[in-house]
Amino acid sequence: MTKNMGVIFIGNKPPMAYVLAIITSLSASNAKEITLKARGQAITTAVDAAEIARRRFMKDLQISKVSIGTEEMPPRKGENRSRMVSTMEITLKKE
Amino acid sequence: MTKNMGVIFIGNKPPMAYVLAIITSLSASNAKEITLKARGQAITTAVDAAEIARRRFMKDLQISKVSIGTEEMPPRKGENRSRMVSTMEITLKKE
Repeated sequence: MTKNMGVIFIGNKPPMAYVLAIITSLSASNAKEITLKARGQAITTAVDAAEIARRRFMKDLQISKVSIGTEEMPPRKGENRSRMVSTMEITLKKE
Repeated sequence: MTKNMGVIFIGNKPPMAYVLAIITSLSASNAKEITLKARGQAITTAVDAAEIARRRFMKDLQISKVSIGTEEMPPRKGENRSRMVSTMEITLKKE
């Protein structure tokens, strides 16, 4: 196991921002793998970024794993109940 | 192979509408499997529906496969270029 597993957290920027992060991360290091982590609406952005990266820029990139799950988030201010949020992880691998 | 593979197309209704469709479909038939198909923003809804169905309603439901891809859509009226849209398929399996 390496100390710095490549992980990119997907937020609400446009997909291309994360495509760039994927390419940079895989080019700069000798890492062969990178994992995109997203929650809620950012899940769609994660899929977009993975697909754009692999179809348009790095043809040797493979999707090695996709998993989904649920995370409990603390309640918003003024609310009592914690919220359940869907999560997704996409692992991309360079051949 | 069965003639009617269980497929639910996820659109822009709230996730609970699809949770209900999942439960109905798996209860009414003797099907053991159902596949959710989603495009674009509906991808998040598909993940929500799968997670709610399996965590809150059908504890014996397992995620057997998650895959992502890209589909080419015809151009919108007045546009020339076809659009690329991310897609996702989630297969759920009853134990």
